[in-house]
Amino acid sequence: MSYVRWSFKTLLRFSLDVFRNFGFNEEESRIITDVLLLSDLYGIESHGIQRMVRYYRGIKKGMIDVFAKPEVSFDTPVSAVIDGHDGMGQLIGHMGMTLAVKKAAQSGIGIVTARNSNHYGIAGYYAKMACDKGLIGFSFTNSEAIMVPTNGRMAMLGSNPIACAMPADPFPFFFDASTTVVTRGKLEIYNKAGKPLPAGWALDKDGHPSTDAPDVLKNIVEKNGGGIMPLGGSEENLGSHKGYGYGMLCEIFTSILSSGMTSNHTMQGDKGGICHGFAAIDPALFGDPAGIKSALSLFLQELRDSPKAEGKKRIYTHGEKEIEAMEEMMKNGIPVNENTMVELLDMCQFLEMNFSVYFGDYCPKKQAGIFENNY
Amino acid sequence: MSYVRWSFKTLLRFSLDVFRNFGFNEEESRIITDVLLLSDLYGIESHGIQRMVRYYRGIKKGMIDVFAKPEVSFDTPVSAVIDGHDGMGQLIGHMGMTLAVKKAAQSGIGIVTARNSNHYGIAGYYAKMACDKGLIGFSFTNSEAIMVPTNGRMAMLGSNPIACAMPADPFPFFFDASTTVVTRGKLEIYNKAGKPLPAGWALDKDGHPSTDAPDVLKNIVEKNGGGIMPLGGSEENLGSHKGYGYGMLCEIFTSILSSGMTSNHTMQGDKGGICHGFAAIDPALFGDPAGIKSALSLFLQELRDSPKAEGKKRIYTHGEKEIEAMEEMMKNGIPVNENTMVELLDMCQFLEMNFSVYFGDYCPKKQAGIFENNY
Repeated sequence: MSYVRWSFKTLLRFSLDVFRNFGFNEEESRIITDVLLLSDLYGIESHGIQRMVRYYRGIKKGMIDVFAKPEVSFDTPVSAVIDGHDGMGQLIGHMGMTLAVKKAAQSGIGIVTARNSNHYGIAGYYAKMACDKGLIGFSFTNSEAIMVPTNGRMAMLGSNPIACAMPADPFPFFFDASTTVVTRGKLEIYNKAGKPLPAGWALDKDGHPSTDAPDVLKNIVEKNGGGIMPLGGSEENLGSHKGYGYGMLCEIFTSILSSGMTSNHTMQGDKGGICHGFAAIDPALFGDPAGIKSALSLFLQELRDSPKAEGKKRIYTHGEKEIEAMEEMMKNGIPVNENTMVELLDMCQFLEMNFSVYFGDYCPKKQAGIFENNY
Repeated sequence: MSYVRWSFKTLLRFSLDVFRNFGFNEEESRIITDVLLLSDLYGIESHGIQRMVRYYRGIKKGMIDVFAKPEVSFDTPVSAVIDGHDGMGQLIGHMGMTLAVKKAAQSGIGIVTARNSNHYGIAGYYAKMACDKGLIGFSFTNSEAIMVPTNGRMAMLGSNPIACAMPADPFPFFFDASTTVVTRGKLEIYNKAGKPLPAGWALDKDGHPSTDAPDVLKNIVEKNGGGIMPLGGSEENLGSHKGYGYGMLCEIFTSILSSGMTSNHTMQGDKGGICHGFAAIDPALFGDPAGIKSALSLFLQELRDSPKAEGKKRIYTHGEKEIEAMEEMMKNGIPVNENTMVELLDMCQFLEMNFSVYFGDYCPKKQAGIFENNY
């Protein structure tokens, strides 16, 4: 597959216009665009602007209500529950973490859950919102069931990412990962490349390990059984029950504590029903924030400086790759898959938007590529 | 190796007397014993009374101060930091979660960290303390460095367990797991049995995967390099960076937020320097606690009822095995390794305690066995 690079400014302008065209107001379009473009800049293509077309389909299908007014349905000085009323996930996510940060400013901590939402992009975006204010941020979301619990053969939990961000120098600790071994998007990459899956990723419909990408994906779509293994694989020997356990922690902070739908009931018919969780914790609850930040920075540096495995050049701390990707892309442009460009062109035609206003005389040509990633 | 079973009552009486003999008062001996015996009853032998002899050595060595008075060094309505002053880990742990629960009773949430502590037994004990009060409990501890970060060859993080317990019917959700693939105790079991380690557990001194148990253990002891892989293995392909990330979350909630020692600096010379973290969250912060409990119970039941992989009989939810182990042992007695019994007999001789008062005319014979487990 090939990629074409566009400047951040070009994609920003395009994305703002697209979401306004979908019916979102100025501020809403800015928030959604910000979430998508941070994902692209962090090198997480699957959750960047290539998702735009899927959101468009979700809106047309009635799953995402552009005019939904999410509301706080339960509230305490340190917590809240939001009913998203089937609105856009990024807006509910932004509202959730904004509220958690506000509570943390008053009480030192805020935990907010949300139900009846939709896909909200990268979990890490919301954790970073808190971190940008000097707080420790957590973000969780459940998602369509894809994780098969240990000893099972049906997907019951989502990819259920857990994200955490905390201030440090020279850059924050930023951890954002699904609790499955990999996400579905990775399976789709192998499928499109016609390659067998690496061992230890997926299960067939009977619950046996499988490297047959087309078969696994077909069974997932048709809900015949099978799916992706928890982090740690499918046997307790390598810690399958631990990945399954982290998936459960995510489920607790999303569906269970928002009285929403657990992963196995989401995304049925025209209902998303996705749930999120957000926490903001002020390090000042535990002493001098500057000292705490220094302690974390020192440990991260010790990790980076520690001896490397033979044949390995670097030990990364979480968030380092994202910062480097962002710097590179702000300089050289954000790579967008040619297939995504085809989809965007098609979408522009539906929306009666002038593609060339943004992308000049560039004419995308459909190729075998990757644009069906998701959690 | 062979085991001998003793009634809960016998081990309780013995343990209380041992800890009183070490110099702990009545209440302290009760707390420490309670932590150790719950571990045995839950089937986690490595953290049960077989640890008693190691604590004895720690006290003799001056690492554990029997007369330490842990104190709260920082305090807010929702948080606190404890300086353990090198006291017994279980007492500092009990104090930490008791304080977190008290804060949760007043503010809905309490997070307490502790520094300058020692090994505190199973992390899950403290999470369960909160759960027994109807709260969601979290417990974290760092430990002597044993986890090699992705791309590294030196252990930099501990086994860093994360435990969570939450009320549910017919039994709570109870998750307690190291963020490494396995704990050191598992390596020692294979070593003593003269068997090669399963692939995907350990690294040699150069950071290459190794199945050579004696070599790996020797290198760990001598700090030559190598150690245990994070959950997810040693390559990003299977999610190594995710297990490493969960280890970091544990480090944040222990050493970083208590201004204590990170895992790589603990257990040096006669200083433990272990750090813990405790959180108690009232589900009532998110609505009706009974409804929330029902929602979790329903999801756990759906998981147990979901289709099994071919050849597998049951899908367990976290905490189910522990409950079943406890029921079985309360009925049939708690199995204690013969080698542990030899150690306990030796210890009784040092302490001038009459072994036969507790164990009658039972005479342990040393065999090849397992009694060097730790996180």
